[in-house]
Formats: sequence, C-alpha cells, structure tokens
Amino acid sequence: MTYADFQAHIAELNDLLNAISILKWDARTMMPSGGAETRGQQLATLSRLAQEHFISDKTARLLDAAEREVAADEPDSYRLRAVQQTRQYYSISRRLPLDLVSDKAALEPVSEGVWAESKRDNDFKRFAPYLQQQLDLAKRQAEAVGYQEHPFDALVFEYEPSVTAAKLKLIFGDLKAGLLPLLQKIVANDRPLERDLWRHEYPLDKQKAFGLEMAQRFGYDLKRGRLDIAPHPFEISFTRQDVRITTRYDLHYFPQALYGTLHETGHALYEQGVDPALTRTALTIDFLGKYPVGGTSYGAHESQSRLWENQIGRSREFWVNHYDRLRHYFPEQVTEVDPEFLYRAVNRVRPSLIRVEADEVTYNLHIMLRVEIEMGLLEGSLQVKDLPEIWNAKMKEYLGVVPKTDSEGVLQDIHWSGGGFGSFPGYTIGNIMSAQFLNAARRDVSGLNDGLERGDYAPLLGWLQQNIYRHGRAFSASELLQRCTGSDLHVAPYLAYLEQKFSDLYRLS
Amino acid sequence: MTYADFQAHIAELNDLLNAISILKWDARTMMPSGGAETRGQQLATLSRLAQEHFISDKTARLLDAAEREVAADEPDSYRLRAVQQTRQYYSISRRLPLDLVSDKAALEPVSEGVWAESKRDNDFKRFAPYLQQQLDLAKRQAEAVGYQEHPFDALVFEYEPSVTAAKLKLIFGDLKAGLLPLLQKIVANDRPLERDLWRHEYPLDKQKAFGLEMAQRFGYDLKRGRLDIAPHPFEISFTRQDVRITTRYDLHYFPQALYGTLHETGHALYEQGVDPALTRTALTIDFLGKYPVGGTSYGAHESQSRLWENQIGRSREFWVNHYDRLRHYFPEQVTEVDPEFLYRAVNRVRPSLIRVEADEVTYNLHIMLRVEIEMGLLEGSLQVKDLPEIWNAKMKEYLGVVPKTDSEGVLQDIHWSGGGFGSFPGYTIGNIMSAQFLNAARRDVSGLNDGLERGDYAPLLGWLQQNIYRHGRAFSASELLQRCTGSDLHVAPYLAYLEQKFSDLYRLS
Repeated sequence: MTYADFQAHIAELNDLLNAISILKWDARTMMPSGGAETRGQQLATLSRLAQEHFISDKTARLLDAAEREVAADEPDSYRLRAVQQTRQYYSISRRLPLDLVSDKAALEPVSEGVWAESKRDNDFKRFAPYLQQQLDLAKRQAEAVGYQEHPFDALVFEYEPSVTAAKLKLIFGDLKAGLLPLLQKIVANDRPLERDLWRHEYPLDKQKAFGLEMAQRFGYDLKRGRLDIAPHPFEISFTRQDVRITTRYDLHYFPQALYGTLHETGHALYEQGVDPALTRTALTIDFLGKYPVGGTSYGAHESQSRLWENQIGRSREFWVNHYDRLRHYFPEQVTEVDPEFLYRAVNRVRPSLIRVEADEVTYNLHIMLRVEIEMGLLEGSLQVKDLPEIWNAKMKEYLGVVPKTDSEGVLQDIHWSGGGFGSFPGYTIGNIMSAQFLNAARRDVSGLNDGLERGDYAPLLGWLQQNIYRHGRAFSASELLQRCTGSDLHVAPYLAYLEQKFSDLYRLS
Repeated sequence: MTYADFQAHIAELNDLLNAISILKWDARTMMPSGGAETRGQQLATLSRLAQEHFISDKTARLLDAAEREVAADEPDSYRLRAVQQTRQYYSISRRLPLDLVSDKAALEPVSEGVWAESKRDNDFKRFAPYLQQQLDLAKRQAEAVGYQEHPFDALVFEYEPSVTAAKLKLIFGDLKAGLLPLLQKIVANDRPLERDLWRHEYPLDKQKAFGLEMAQRFGYDLKRGRLDIAPHPFEISFTRQDVRITTRYDLHYFPQALYGTLHETGHALYEQGVDPALTRTALTIDFLGKYPVGGTSYGAHESQSRLWENQIGRSREFWVNHYDRLRHYFPEQVTEVDPEFLYRAVNRVRPSLIRVEADEVTYNLHIMLRVEIEMGLLEGSLQVKDLPEIWNAKMKEYLGVVPKTDSEGVLQDIHWSGGGFGSFPGYTIGNIMSAQFLNAARRDVSGLNDGLERGDYAPLLGWLQQNIYRHGRAFSASELLQRCTGSDLHVAPYLAYLEQKFSDLYRLS
C-alpha cells in the first residue's frame, strides 16, 4: 500500500461527500416539498456509508502506509498535511457512534423543511420539537468528541478548531470594548437619508443580472458556478469545478440580493481558488462536518465573504466605479441619487432585528447573543421552549430593539435547524480576520489600492489566491494568519477599520 | 435474517441509486459545464458502490433468507415478486465486471456533455470517439450478460425483457404493413393549414404556466414534482415523492414545449402513482439500468407518455376543452383560430427530420431506422465514422427527407451518448401498448368517455392507477397486458386507432 492508495481511498470519500452536498443543495433550492422524507433517508444512507468508509480499518491501514511514505516530507508539504489531518480526524471520528451520524443526516432535511414553514407561518411551537432533537444530538456529539471545560468547546472545534468558549469570551470582550462606544456615537449622530430610492420596483431578473455582473467582476467564474434563490442564502461547493451560490430578493430593496450575492461570492472565490492538485484530497474535506470544502475553517471562510461583501462591496469606490452599471439595469429607478448617496445608504448603522441585514457595527452583537444562547442550551441553563422570550429579552438588552414576530426573531436563521451549534462564532472571527488579511495584502501589493480605486479586483484576488485560497485546508486559520500577517487573531485592525470608515461616514470627531 | 433485513438492504440500494439519479438530473439541468469531469468521478464512485452493494455476498445471504420466508406467498404477492426479481437480476449482475459498471458511469456525463456541444456545433467528428467508447462498452456488456441469437437481445433485455431482435422484426413488419398504406394516402391528401399562428411570440413563462396547468389537470402533483428546461426532455423520479419533468421551448411554436411537457407528464403520472408501500423496495429498481424507477419496462412507461401526450393531449376534445385557457395565456396571439384548427395543426402528418417532433403516423419509422443502426453497429456491419452518411441514406429511404446538418440528423437524440443501446424499441412498443390499455379502460369504466369529453381526466387516471401504476415493477409489461386486456402485445388496436383518427382528419375514404 502506498500514498497513492491512500489518496484513491480519500478520493472516493470526496465523491460520496460531494453527492451528499448535491442532495442538500437540491433540497434547499429545487426539491419539491413532498420529497423531504425520502431525501432524509437518502442522506442518512449516504452519510452512514461515508462515515463507514472513513472510519473503516482500511483507512487505518492506508494511513499507516501513507504516514511512512510522507514521514520525510517538508513540514508544509500538502501530502504530509493531508495525512496528518486525516489521522487527527480519524481518531475523533472513531469515537462518534454510527447511529448518531445517520440520525443527524436524516433529521437535517426534515428539520430544515419544518423550520422554513415555521418561519413562514411565524410558528415557533411547530419548530421547537425539531430544535430539541437537534440539541439532543449536539449534546450526544459533544460527549462523544469530548471536551475539557465546556460542551461548546467540542462543537465549536468542528468549525473553528483554535477557539474555545473561554477564548471566545475574551475576544468578545475586546470587541465589545471597542464597538459599544463607537455605536453610541453613531446612533447619536444618525440622521436618516431622505430620498425614497426604495419605493421603486427593481425587477428580479435585472437584480440577478446586476449581482452576477458584479460577482464576475470580483472574479467568480460562471463556468464553474451558478446563482439560485434560497430563503437563507448560502454557498456550496462540489469540488472547485462546481461552486454554487444563492441569494434572496426583495422587489424594492435591491441591496438585499446584491450583498447576499457578493457575500456568497466571497465564499465562492475561496472555493474556486483552491489548487487543482487538491481536488478530491483530504485537504478539501471537512471530516467532522462531513462535507467537501476548500476553506480551512468557518472563520477563514467568513473572512472572505465579509471582505468581499463589506470591505470591497460596501466601499465608496465600489459605488463610484459601478454606479453606471446600476443605472444601466435600472434607468428609471436610479435617477435622483449619486454614488455617495448609495455608499451612505448601504452603510447606515442602525440597531435592527435581522442578522444577515445588520450593518457592520451592530453585526457582531447579533452573533454574541446567539453564542450565549447556544452555550446556555448546552449547559442546560436555558430551555428550548423559552427561546422566543429569551431571544427577545437579549435583543432588547444588546440592541435596544424587540422583534414583533418570532419569524423576525428566534426563527430567522437556518443554522440551528441543521444542527449547526458552534458555527456562529465563525462570523465574528471572520470579520476580525478579514481586516488582518486586507492590511497584509495592502502591505504586500503596491498596485492594490490603485486597483480598487479603478474597480480592478485582480491584484487583490491574486494576493488572496496566492496566500490563502490555493492552500485549501492545508494550513489552519491560525497558521494562515501567522504566514500572512506575522501574528495570530487580534481585534485591533478590525476595530481600526470600523473606526475609520464610520467616523468618516458619520463625521464623528 | 428475515425478509425485513432483505428489505432494509434493498432500501439502502434504493437510496444510493436515488442519489445517482439526482447527480444525473443535476448534470442535465443545473450543473455548470466545468463540473462535468468531477461529476463523472462522483457517478463512477457511487455506481461502483451501488454495484458492490447489490452483488455482495450479503445480498445472496439475505436473498436466501427472504426466499424461505416468502415461499408460501400468493404468486402475485409483492414480497414474492420483489424476491424473485432481485434473484433474477442478482444472477445477471454477478456476471457484469465491476470495471465495466464504473467505466459506464464515468463516461456518461462526459459523453453527454460532448454530445450537447457537438449537437450545438454540428460537429459529429467531435462526438464520434465518445460514441465509439459507448459502443465498445455496450458490446462488453452484451458479452457479459449473454445472449442466444443477437447481441442486441442482451441489451434490449434491460429495457424490454420480453422482446428480442427476432421478435422486433416481426412486430415492425406488422406495423409497417399497416402504416405505409395509411401514410401514402395521407401524404396524397395533405394540404397545409393556412393561418400563420406560429409567427407570433409566445413568452416562455406563459408557455410554462400553460403546460403546467394542463399537466396538473391530467393529475401531476407539483408537491411531488417540478418542471425544468433540458435540451432533450426527460422525466426522472427519486421515489414517488419526487418526480421531475423537463421540456424545451420554442418562442414561436408553443406545441413543442406543451407536448414535451404532456409527454413527460405521462411518465410522471406513472411514477407518482406507484403504491407508497413499494417505496424503496426491489419493485422500484431497474437493477440492470441501475436506477430507481416505478415503471415496469421502457415500453410500459412509454405507453403512458404516448397515451397522455397523443391519445389525450392531441385529441379534438383536448382543444375543445382547453382552448379558453390557451387564450387566457395568449390573448394577443391566439385570435384567428378555433379549437378545430388547433386539433388539426398539432396532428399534421408530414415526413420530417426530428423524432421527438414527428407525428403519430411517421414516428415509428424514426424508431425502426435507429434500431436497425444499433443492430448493425453491434454486429459490426456498420461503423461509427460512417453514421452520418448511413443515417441520411436511411432517412431518404424511410421518410423521403434528408437532414441538412448532423444536428438535425444523427446527433439529434441523447440516447447513444448515454450508452442507451436497446432502448429505442420501447417507444414503438409503448405506442402499441397505449392503444391496448386505452381500449381496456374504455371497456371497464362507463364514465370514461364522458369524462374525456368534459376534460375530466380522473376516471382515466383512476383506471390506470388501479390497473398499472400502483403495481410498480411487480408485473412485467406482458403480464400487465394479459391482466388488463387478456392478450399480449399486438398491433391491431394501435393501427385501428391511427386509421380512425387520421381518416377523419384527412377525410380519407
């Protein structure tokens, strides 16, 4: 047995996981509602087969052989990394009971379907038993994986291996200390913009065309991608050759679909940028989440979606450069405003109800709220049935606003319906990382700022591709930060970015 | 081990085959072109896993146990049938080499992709090597399965177990003897319809809405289905809970999309009508084709698509009943014609180039031509490189027309690109069966003709559901015919139907 045999075995696992991802994509975008139950059975069977394939004794034998073959490789060698990571997750996965894996897979599409209907009908009670089942599965998983301090540590490990509940509390503390004073100053200075740009209708096909044009300008390759509609936008990749995004549309408020598209485009650029040599290897597998992905962690992935959505898409230069294209698609609607108006409009800071529509300053407060609830549910200090009340109380405390319906409150996000406890911190970690990466790119590439001024994104994309995307999951988020910036995760660059952008926008002293 | 264990094992096989079908549906309707190669790898892996699962020693042990348990069942018992069929195809499948199965699966999406591009670019030479590969695989398969007289017998067995090359020649002979005189009389009497209904534009979304409305009137359940676009329309089912159809659109000639939709709706009604108790059993698997399907053979399936498309959808009553709905969708386009004009327009008989657009009288000549070519390729008397020339010569001989391009000729159908040698006879067998079934339904259900007169399809659907659909693959096509009509396949009812319809339409003496 050789490394090549090991790789062929892992390639098969990739294929199985890719099939699972397509079943999930289809369930979220295309599948008729009647198909949910049998889709759950299909996912359960394939997930169990994938799990059996991975935790088989054959994997152990192939790992032994591969380890011998790569032992003398350089520490950064992809082969060595592939073997090391497979070994690490093989050990963890052997501790996960098979029935837990298939129960999770079977529950996911059913639970997501119920969530979508419950959100539509503002009916939390209908969703509650499914959420309880997901929570019970998460607890079983935490016990099986093991943890030192907090069950949350075992779950967040799947998404962000380098943080724990304790570390998160420190990071959140640093962030709050910078964000809250800024937010207070902004709210005190806020004056609504007066033009009623959003009273017009923006036909959805034109919105889609404009969003896709911008996505392609950023570098999204439609020969290896497509854009569909989903109630909760997401990106999903079936190898770097087929990386799909989704968004949702508001007939009047076109930034919803646009920034949904640009956010998912950031994810997609990461996936499309993975080195072709890593296709179907261990370095494009999330072994715990059991899906094929090129990005190294949730936070690293989110750093790219947030970077392209916010730091590029919500920049003054973006609207200066692309204002004419917006008018091309909407000549009758976009008449009485200028690029500066658009820049200000898409950056208005205002405590609000919906996380995915939150501005950059309040966004992380939405995350902290969710993470606290997850920790409470896992500890047992909070109960599923009380969540609407708890949610609303925390919204009042953190943001000073209270949702009128659960659809705008506790039911707004898909994550819990899919069992994704531990995934939310990645959003805030991504925000923090995005500023660190962009600073490093500006430092390294002399023409980068000039490019952004002109709407030429190739220099930025080139740096990201070279330093981050191509490596797939070969390096951890922490290693990527060290390699690119010389330091680990820290909040100062992100806070500085927000201070500068919003002090200018709100003319703060 | 019990029958329940056997059933659980077959349920897993169903899940795997369903996943494969979704990968194929996606490849034909949604997948970006860049994804073809990795999709091929995914299909190869899953097909190999499905094949290994089926031909495993475990299947043999479970079969032994199940056979003992169902031995005393009634001959028509679903359990007994499930076990018998699994045994039959288990024996055949053990003779198929694993690498043949995965080679076929890997080639299919690549070959289909090249076919689509070759057809678009009218470039047969580009497609030829892929067709040759498919032919070589088909020959290997015929040798592995085994046959008595002709390699074609081993291939057609997959689609229509009860016919052989020799039997087909007899049936085709009977059919020709009836069709050719009728066609000659019609051509002599043909006068083109004068109104230029097809100069108008029919927006595609309206065409889709009208087609779906008609499909739903026939009984297609959109909670368990959806309609998409594909260059070569098809129906595909992932269990009876999720049965999808596709069609293609011509902006000017709305019957193309409409009758494509109604044809696939016929297939879909069959699949949606399978007894829920058969979900994930051996009676919803095509073990040789390796896909999940409720219909018992290609011909039985096609009998339903042709029945709903032609005998219902192209009836005078259809247009009398639904003319107002057509005008509802196209008030500006459908102005100077009446239902009788539409009835005549969609039934015009004219020797033409494209099989899927051929009228009911010439259609079977297109099939005979293809079947002869397949037999010749398998015998070695014809060569792939010569196919455009051979095709055109046969078109001239059979139909008196010659395609100007290969796109309208030898490249028009998807079947060979997917390796479907032996599948074409099913279309003609389906035509023949459809008349036998409809006669039986009229005989059994007193209100059926009244229903059709009023556009009420429930009595017909009810009979088909009760006598055909619900049984899935429990009975062969031959058994279904015997049970419903008391006789086996014979061409007289179909010829009588054509004689009557077209003698009236063309006022033949």
